[in-house]
Amino acid sequence: MVDTVVRPAQPGSRPVAAEADDARIDIPAVTRMLLGTWADIRLEAREMIKDSAFWRIDGLSHHAHRERVLEQTQLLADAGAGARAYPTEYGGRNTNGGNLAGFEELVLADPSLQIKSGVQWGLFGSAVLQLGTKKHHDRWLRDIMSLKIPGAFAMTESGHGSDVQSIGTTATYDPETEEFVIHTPFRGAWKDYLGNAAVHGKAATVFAQLISKGVNYGVHCFFVPIRDDNGVFLPGVGGEDDGVKGGLNGVDNGRLHFDHVRVPRENLLNRYGDVAPDGTYSSPIASPGRRFFTMLGALVQGRVSLDGSATWASGLALKIAVTYGNQRRQFDSGTGTGETVLLDYAKHRRRLLPLLATTYAQAFAHDELLVKFDGVFGGTADTDESREDLETLAAALKPLSTWHALATIQECREACGGAGYMAENRLVTLHQDLDVYVTFEGDNNVLLQLVGKRLLSDYGKQFTGKDARALAAYAVGETADKIFHGAGLRRLGQAFADLGSTARSVELGLRAHDQQELLTDRVQRMTADVAGRLRLASRLSPAQAAELFNENQVALLEAARAHGELLQWEAFTDAVERVEDEGTRQVLTWLRDLFGLGLIEKHLAWYLLNGRLSTQRAAAVSSYIDRLCARLRPHAQDLVDAFGFEPEHVRAPIASGQEQARQEEAAAYYAALRASGEAPVKEKKPAR
Amino acid sequence: MVDTVVRPAQPGSRPVAAEADDARIDIPAVTRMLLGTWADIRLEAREMIKDSAFWRIDGLSHHAHRERVLEQTQLLADAGAGARAYPTEYGGRNTNGGNLAGFEELVLADPSLQIKSGVQWGLFGSAVLQLGTKKHHDRWLRDIMSLKIPGAFAMTESGHGSDVQSIGTTATYDPETEEFVIHTPFRGAWKDYLGNAAVHGKAATVFAQLISKGVNYGVHCFFVPIRDDNGVFLPGVGGEDDGVKGGLNGVDNGRLHFDHVRVPRENLLNRYGDVAPDGTYSSPIASPGRRFFTMLGALVQGRVSLDGSATWASGLALKIAVTYGNQRRQFDSGTGTGETVLLDYAKHRRRLLPLLATTYAQAFAHDELLVKFDGVFGGTADTDESREDLETLAAALKPLSTWHALATIQECREACGGAGYMAENRLVTLHQDLDVYVTFEGDNNVLLQLVGKRLLSDYGKQFTGKDARALAAYAVGETADKIFHGAGLRRLGQAFADLGSTARSVELGLRAHDQQELLTDRVQRMTADVAGRLRLASRLSPAQAAELFNENQVALLEAARAHGELLQWEAFTDAVERVEDEGTRQVLTWLRDLFGLGLIEKHLAWYLLNGRLSTQRAAAVSSYIDRLCARLRPHAQDLVDAFGFEPEHVRAPIASGQEQARQEEAAAYYAALRASGEAPVKEKKPAR
Repeated sequence: MVDTVVRPAQPGSRPVAAEADDARIDIPAVTRMLLGTWADIRLEAREMIKDSAFWRIDGLSHHAHRERVLEQTQLLADAGAGARAYPTEYGGRNTNGGNLAGFEELVLADPSLQIKSGVQWGLFGSAVLQLGTKKHHDRWLRDIMSLKIPGAFAMTESGHGSDVQSIGTTATYDPETEEFVIHTPFRGAWKDYLGNAAVHGKAATVFAQLISKGVNYGVHCFFVPIRDDNGVFLPGVGGEDDGVKGGLNGVDNGRLHFDHVRVPRENLLNRYGDVAPDGTYSSPIASPGRRFFTMLGALVQGRVSLDGSATWASGLALKIAVTYGNQRRQFDSGTGTGETVLLDYAKHRRRLLPLLATTYAQAFAHDELLVKFDGVFGGTADTDESREDLETLAAALKPLSTWHALATIQECREACGGAGYMAENRLVTLHQDLDVYVTFEGDNNVLLQLVGKRLLSDYGKQFTGKDARALAAYAVGETADKIFHGAGLRRLGQAFADLGSTARSVELGLRAHDQQELLTDRVQRMTADVAGRLRLASRLSPAQAAELFNENQVALLEAARAHGELLQWEAFTDAVERVEDEGTRQVLTWLRDLFGLGLIEKHLAWYLLNGRLSTQRAAAVSSYIDRLCARLRPHAQDLVDAFGFEPEHVRAPIASGQEQARQEEAAAYYAALRASGEAPVKEKKPAR
Repeated sequence: MVDTVVRPAQPGSRPVAAEADDARIDIPAVTRMLLGTWADIRLEAREMIKDSAFWRIDGLSHHAHRERVLEQTQLLADAGAGARAYPTEYGGRNTNGGNLAGFEELVLADPSLQIKSGVQWGLFGSAVLQLGTKKHHDRWLRDIMSLKIPGAFAMTESGHGSDVQSIGTTATYDPETEEFVIHTPFRGAWKDYLGNAAVHGKAATVFAQLISKGVNYGVHCFFVPIRDDNGVFLPGVGGEDDGVKGGLNGVDNGRLHFDHVRVPRENLLNRYGDVAPDGTYSSPIASPGRRFFTMLGALVQGRVSLDGSATWASGLALKIAVTYGNQRRQFDSGTGTGETVLLDYAKHRRRLLPLLATTYAQAFAHDELLVKFDGVFGGTADTDESREDLETLAAALKPLSTWHALATIQECREACGGAGYMAENRLVTLHQDLDVYVTFEGDNNVLLQLVGKRLLSDYGKQFTGKDARALAAYAVGETADKIFHGAGLRRLGQAFADLGSTARSVELGLRAHDQQELLTDRVQRMTADVAGRLRLASRLSPAQAAELFNENQVALLEAARAHGELLQWEAFTDAVERVEDEGTRQVLTWLRDLFGLGLIEKHLAWYLLNGRLSTQRAAAVSSYIDRLCARLRPHAQDLVDAFGFEPEHVRAPIASGQEQARQEEAAAYYAALRASGEAPVKEKKPAR
């Protein structure tokens, strides 16, 4: 790894414990850990985007930015980067986890490029691959992979985003001509916010209510050509440009509507539902509800990949802010040693290091998610249960990591002051581009609600065979904990081994197994509490039951979040356990402790109110975090360097060593001035 | 007020208490309250910016945006809006509070216009007015007011932002020619991030170390011409464009540097320090430190006005998101009443209504700040003590309100989903533009540290005349509270009258006086705790003392924040007390309770750990907040309408009634379809 970073001496930040002086992380080894299972594909992608042709240029009009990103997407296609997830018989590499790993790295080049290519190959092309069958693959996949057919993924409508089942677009089968008639019946049913729709798309995978013989078979997906080779809308197709957005302005989002547009019967992507020439509907999945969720589940990769992208973007922001914070000085401490390095301020490390700990946790959790995804989509572990687990896992992790990215990038931007506001230093545009990651590919709160419902359902399964009365008793009683323990909830974590006997982090009754117990306990208790309050729902009217659920919505979302946090903590802990190098293990254990205790501090009131922490132990949490921040401070640069970004990935002038060089220039100026004997003297203080 | 907002029926959100059915706020009366002391000038400004010539246009290049904003600023000048704060003898209106009130409203038109005009008249012009004397006023004020001389405020340098005292630019007096030589000795001393510097500025108020006869008299301000009438840099002056920023791209920020640029002796703005022709320095303020802070204090209006601007921007975001949340529906509740309005979801009101409560608190606190500012700068209450109070107050409120604006705008953006990400709906650009409000005009953390030091100093004054031993005893003892009580800390709040006997909000031991006690207690206890831990500093070496202070930095900043929150709470409470209309008083009391309890919930762990709340009372806080949100939900639209924004101020299509109209169109379509007898039937569920 090329590394231009200067590591200044860090006066005044000696770690508390003596052992900290010795411990150092093995940076390349940690980089390898963070890169995860598909490290080779990540490095391949990083090598490719060192070419400035892939970089974002600030200040382009959204029109110019779109054209640039289209060209970049063509470069990706030419390099085969769009083909990774596709079957080898079409020229692909048939790697699912690896494909997403490589895709995620594009966030370092330009998030617009990431999303543009994600629309093309992860959504539009993926709909053809996952929802279509061989005839569709033969006909379209090669042209999709090569970008000969740029396409839009036309699911969301102006009137329905999260609730896809209620979209208004219809696809009515006409047996006379053996065609589907795609139609937009009212303004709210316009397809909206679609990448590739405003300008570049030549076709779209359109989701619509499939109607045949007077029956609505629910939402299905159709391949619909939308523009001719001159970029002009085909007859019956219309649209609008979404215009300027908060970010991702290199993606041409737009709206589409259809006025009785006819497509051949074969354009129904028919893997999960088909219509015979005479209009008879058939499906391998009898239940309309299960069929719908299976179709949607086939498209889970979008949210899987956002979890990783958000994590790397957080890492990039921290690399920039920590590097700058390690060089920038402001205010004389009054001790005669000159101005203080920002990261030596207690507040500065308190604002950045916990974010770094969370980013590490996410990276490890994400790799486990990718492995799970690869197993399901690669077919080695493709069962109904593992698909459901994958969807729950993605729904639990994507909200946490995308929100974390926004919080982290913003804190980094503020920690860099005015310099952080300059586009050239990347933090502001990174925030703008990633902003929508929290609401697209599944709104974060909607996803957490899915997780919450899964928690409730897993909780309920513990009582299968028991009568309702028993359930009620358990739900409200203390014993619920024990019954719940060991349930299907935790899928990520491996068997837990206590680090306490060897790790140096043992103090104050807040060691690893205490952290795990507290985090696990919270998920269980919160789930049990909500379940207990909801148990009366079956006796209520639908309206009252809905109101009861609504009253518990906030608590359920919080339980889901706690579940995601636990998964991240466990992934981090598992990763630390795999480390053999002593110094690395020591430092990463502190970092894991910072993550775990940070979660406990965030929810400290809950732990106190629920009697899970004594006031004494609780009071120790914050001061322990302060000490951990001080301990980790000398390792901050190593830990961000371990993300493995090269100068071509970082690019921010403030993280280039420029700041350090300027300070040295200023110091040399003052030194020369003093040596010359011509330095102005200070004004005398007035006599009192 | 023109109001196009539809108020749909709100099923399922009946307030808990019966009295809520009757209470309604008197919207125009609340608008009047929120507009505050200078309502007339605010309304005048709002009327002016209903003209689309003042509106932001999305998607302009930063070059085109800058030219548009320059033209808009000229329109302001022509309308006399730039003259309000200036003396009547130069054609001004000599109103200080009113000037800022009008200025703040510009955030509704385009924050770039606000900041461009703020640079011209609030910083550059204000430096001439506040730091200069009559000769400077006579020479330059009219041209500054008319925008004939656009100017930059050249204080910050690349190497020094928060620490102005350490800037590197020098102004060395040459008695031979009776000139100052302005010089930039190294790259870190380039002036940076200056509005008007990249393109439009013809002059700058340059802050530099004043050196005469070999003595450095510290930072002073000089009027320095920088460009000729053709916009070309004058000899010795150079600069660079800061380029694209995270927002405010209608302001041409840039860098300036000076190579031995000579200006006449008279160009020193000499109100607080002068140099005679022979080079003899004199100042009405003998202490260099006090002189420096007096000069900087003369420029406090920037941060005062940001407090108000951030508050109105938060109000605008909430107006958009609440209006949309009151119309947008998503997901059928399963009760047969159709899709649920977003704001009927418990999570949705929990994410928006507490932000609304805080915005109200800020509006009331801000008006008190403006009154204070007007008293000091208008001369009716201009003492050293009131100046110091004003600076502390501004330093306490500006961080809270600017951070709140970012949090609020972001939450509103997310609450509007994909629509919220479209620039036309304003939330994203509002966030981008206001982002830098948290770090400019005083970095928020640096300001809070000032407040914290003031708290410590006020705390220390309680012990004047007592020996160190007694101080130590007090600092750690329980009695510290009592001694501290009634200290100079609280300046905003009036004598408190318990609302408990009349207000309906009395429940659970969390009524108004409990809130006040808890909030006050926290400031006192945290300050006393930090003071107690710092009391040993005098016995330590400078390095150890600095380290001890550093260890307490996070806690001190937290105490400062608590102080600001208390001030806001008291201002809100004072405002509620002035209300005579029963319904208005009732609803605003709930809103104030939501604000107060929200603060207590945020710091609940602290209250539990410090024994200030029993677990029973603490457990009641969150559920009480949930009930308050449910109670306030039917008033949400009224409360955002009371900000008094007209359609020309809101402009977001999603808040225009468009959403409601689309839903009605869809509903009519489905109703007609059902009536026609041709509606497709639902697929039959498979037999089990």
